Amino acid sequence: MRALHWDGHSLRVRPTHPEPKLTAGNAVVKVSLAGICSTDLQILRGYMGFSGIPGHEFVGTVVDGPGTLQGQRVVGEINFACGRCALCAQNLQRHCPTRQVMGILNADGSFAEYLAVPVENLHLVPANVSDEEAVFTEPLAAAFEILEQLDLKPDTEVVVFGDGKLGLLCAQVLHSVGARVTLVGRHAKKLALARRSGIVTMLLSEWTPRLVEVVVEATGSTSGLTLAMATVRPRGTLVLKSTVAQEHALSLAPLVINEVTMIGSRCGRFPPALHALAHTQVAVTPLITATYSLSDGIAAVNRAAESGVLKVLLRNS
Amino acid sequence: MRALHWDGHSLRVRPTHPEPKLTAGNAVVKVSLAGICSTDLQILRGYMGFSGIPGHEFVGTVVDGPGTLQGQRVVGEINFACGRCALCAQNLQRHCPTRQVMGILNADGSFAEYLAVPVENLHLVPANVSDEEAVFTEPLAAAFEILEQLDLKPDTEVVVFGDGKLGLLCAQVLHSVGARVTLVGRHAKKLALARRSGIVTMLLSEWTPRLVEVVVEATGSTSGLTLAMATVRPRGTLVLKSTVAQEHALSLAPLVINEVTMIGSRCGRFPPALHALAHTQVAVTPLITATYSLSDGIAAVNRAAESGVLKVLLRNS
Repeated sequence: MRALHWDGHSLRVRPTHPEPKLTAGNAVVKVSLAGICSTDLQILRGYMGFSGIPGHEFVGTVVDGPGTLQGQRVVGEINFACGRCALCAQNLQRHCPTRQVMGILNADGSFAEYLAVPVENLHLVPANVSDEEAVFTEPLAAAFEILEQLDLKPDTEVVVFGDGKLGLLCAQVLHSVGARVTLVGRHAKKLALARRSGIVTMLLSEWTPRLVEVVVEATGSTSGLTLAMATVRPRGTLVLKSTVAQEHALSLAPLVINEVTMIGSRCGRFPPALHALAHTQVAVTPLITATYSLSDGIAAVNRAAESGVLKVLLRNS
Repeated sequence: MRALHWDGHSLRVRPTHPEPKLTAGNAVVKVSLAGICSTDLQILRGYMGFSGIPGHEFVGTVVDGPGTLQGQRVVGEINFACGRCALCAQNLQRHCPTRQVMGILNADGSFAEYLAVPVENLHLVPANVSDEEAVFTEPLAAAFEILEQLDLKPDTEVVVFGDGKLGLLCAQVLHSVGARVTLVGRHAKKLALARRSGIVTMLLSEWTPRLVEVVVEATGSTSGLTLAMATVRPRGTLVLKSTVAQEHALSLAPLVINEVTMIGSRCGRFPPALHALAHTQVAVTPLITATYSLSDGIAAVNRAAESGVLKVLLRNS
């Protein structure tokens, strides 16, 4: 099959990569669309020491596996868990210590014609959700994760720093449940997308310091983290939605003095995201900057890394 | 009056420092005992840029103020709030943005014969609580603060890192509400105090890595913070109970990946601490290493800074 392959040093389109074999508990999915995420770009810089087929955002059709799933349009959660440990027993498969992670850790991902996924990770896509919408299920679920971790009262003031894909999705999700959201970023065009959904936006250059109950850090930058820490009010909550992988100089003393709660937030469950897509509570397709053929995967990845670009999709055709 | 005075450069016993005057809303307290806290030692190294009379732990007797308080034995909360802002309205005077803090920020403290304290900050000491116990109310309240911030289920596994004064008090408080506490520290003698209360203890040199639901960082050291971060299980909680004032290299990525909740925790309300002292739910007097006369304040401060020393008290006599 055709696949984008990262050997730890270079990324290549392989025209005849071996297809995944059906194994117990898995289904084989023919990928229709895959999304390129910032994490993928980090992986191509060495993050996680991954090698294999990257990609963890997809929508596709089951071509092999349990009969009930055959021919069904699906999306898939990315953490492949053991199902037997204490965290799995608590329905926290996303934190299973021996998990594989699609396209990130010891499992091939979605930048390919076919993909093997545990059956229990698959979710059917509602008929009224297009492929172009469904491919956003994974990052949208990551935005909904905030609501699983934080008891957010309606009318709570929230500032989201970062107008990238994740920041835009977080702002929409929090706005959809009644929070008073301000999205702060560097790109007027990206902020304009959020304003279409009724979200208040502000250019970072216009930001004046104030204290806010809930702050979401979605810039993935040290400067963004520093600003976010300075913006949480005493006893407020700071949600860390993006990772700043490298070590950097930081003092946590202000968190102690102001008794801030800092919540690390990563992957989310898919059902709330699929429900929001089916009920058009969020608008994801305006985030699509470009769609490339899988054969043009290198160009797609390069495009995704350009400044000002939002979601780049790979079409398997 | 006699007072220990820090001018920003040197600490001196002043035999004839002006006594505090009674002003509206305040009471004047004759200090019986004051406690030296690690924060005081930091202040004498320049922390907070404070100058004046340090000290924020005390028990004393009201000598001037409202008639109902005259002659009463009291302890006092250390944050002097405006009473009018949004945080004060939420009963979070400890976070009032324009607060003074006794012996720490723009207000003289307790290392003196007399001390002025807002009446609303004072709490009567129950008759069965000795001065030597009551002088621990402030740090004990800081330990109880964890219970105000965290919904701690009985039988939850908790590891407290740091066998200093605060770690010992935190371990006792968490143990007293049914948590399964392990206190980890460097000092066999200090750990022995916790074992008297039935707390499991472990020397840091014997610690083997494992993952725990709730971790309390009470070492105030970078290495302690790093170890604490590595010990919280996915979706667990890390309580930062001590400040590491200086910046240090740190990556918060593990907090995001493991979706850890990190809670900064500082001063607490006094009533739970006084209740625990009155009902002998915690043992504080074993933490007293030495008691000095206020006249010997310099020696007392030097002693408090020595390794292995726990609480040093100043007696006003």
